[in-house]
Amino acid sequence: MAKQDRAIRTRRAILEAAAVVFDERGYDAATISEILARAEVTKGALYFHFASKEDLARAVVQTRMSVTALRPELPRSSKMQELVDIGLIFTHRLLVDPVLRGSVRLSIEHSATAPHRDSRFDEWTELHTRTLMEGKERGEVLPHVMPSEVAELIVAAYGGINALSQTVCGRADLERRAIVLYEHLMPGVAVPAVLARLDIAPGRGARALAELERQRAATPAGVA
Amino acid sequence: MAKQDRAIRTRRAILEAAAVVFDERGYDAATISEILARAEVTKGALYFHFASKEDLARAVVQTRMSVTALRPELPRSSKMQELVDIGLIFTHRLLVDPVLRGSVRLSIEHSATAPHRDSRFDEWTELHTRTLMEGKERGEVLPHVMPSEVAELIVAAYGGINALSQTVCGRADLERRAIVLYEHLMPGVAVPAVLARLDIAPGRGARALAELERQRAATPAGVA
Repeated sequence: MAKQDRAIRTRRAILEAAAVVFDERGYDAATISEILARAEVTKGALYFHFASKEDLARAVVQTRMSVTALRPELPRSSKMQELVDIGLIFTHRLLVDPVLRGSVRLSIEHSATAPHRDSRFDEWTELHTRTLMEGKERGEVLPHVMPSEVAELIVAAYGGINALSQTVCGRADLERRAIVLYEHLMPGVAVPAVLARLDIAPGRGARALAELERQRAATPAGVA
Repeated sequence: MAKQDRAIRTRRAILEAAAVVFDERGYDAATISEILARAEVTKGALYFHFASKEDLARAVVQTRMSVTALRPELPRSSKMQELVDIGLIFTHRLLVDPVLRGSVRLSIEHSATAPHRDSRFDEWTELHTRTLMEGKERGEVLPHVMPSEVAELIVAAYGGINALSQTVCGRADLERRAIVLYEHLMPGVAVPAVLARLDIAPGRGARALAELERQRAATPAGVA
């Protein structure tokens, strides 16, 4: 293995270990020694890549998935399917990606103490609002639905089920809880004809993400 | 004023001041001197009633509203109205009662760091589950609804909107957010005939609580 490849792998291993420790313990309780033990690297290797615990936390947060990466680009059966897919793809990624989990935990901790909200919340809400507005234009949404209100409801409710699922069982039931959310919320949002064709089945997030990645692989670099 | 009355009022003033400070700052950042300034009492008076900050926090948490106090006892038009009233009465009390707000904040902080969940969460979920099961027996609930799943969804989603509303505007829009939650969730839970008669209008929490208190006042002590 080339020296550079090895350095990249070591850095990635440290980042993943740090994310797992931040996710499990929170920032304050996380220690460099636990991160070292989990990454199976030397102190020297860690400090070669990262200056401090704070520096590590910053790197974990920066790897966060951009909202653009969540926007399903494939033509879906409906805008309401797109809306559901945003949440289910995020759920799937949260379950398979420890760095994303660490990033989310650090962001939530930060926003709880910081006077201003995490900008991620606004990005999420805007993405949901836009999708609901597009759905409304196409006649997919019930007449009384106000896109921005429902967008904030979905984002806040998802935050609540994520926090609960993490506390209760380390997110083992997060997908089920997300499905229960959409199953009971969408009848109050989508018109019946659209509702009947929604795919909210278990595994939908994984399938939608795989589809998205296949499409991205087929798209010339720099366009996606 | 009798000496004893004065002592009770002083204790209450300290408790309310402490709850407000805990709610605004959280346990760690709250200081005895800020509580003293807000309660407008002397250090001696505070330490006569409470031994420490920890003791104050315990007293605030203990004043928490019992779940029994939330169970609407009046015959409602439907069990689904009862379900909605649980959340809307709680919302109203949270907005008018600073001690309850402090208690909720301290409980959430505690459950975030403690390995076990707050027992309040279980009590809330049980109350919602029971109400949904009773609704199911009366044919008020859609066939696919599983009471325990929907109960956990409502409690978690409410937790999310409460956290968001507190962060964004100190809960100024909490009632509106609770209404948006029920407006969009109940069509996926209640049968149309019951749905059509639900009162989820602004002020419902205040009205339902007033009704409840009138009824309690008319009930012999020890029975309610």
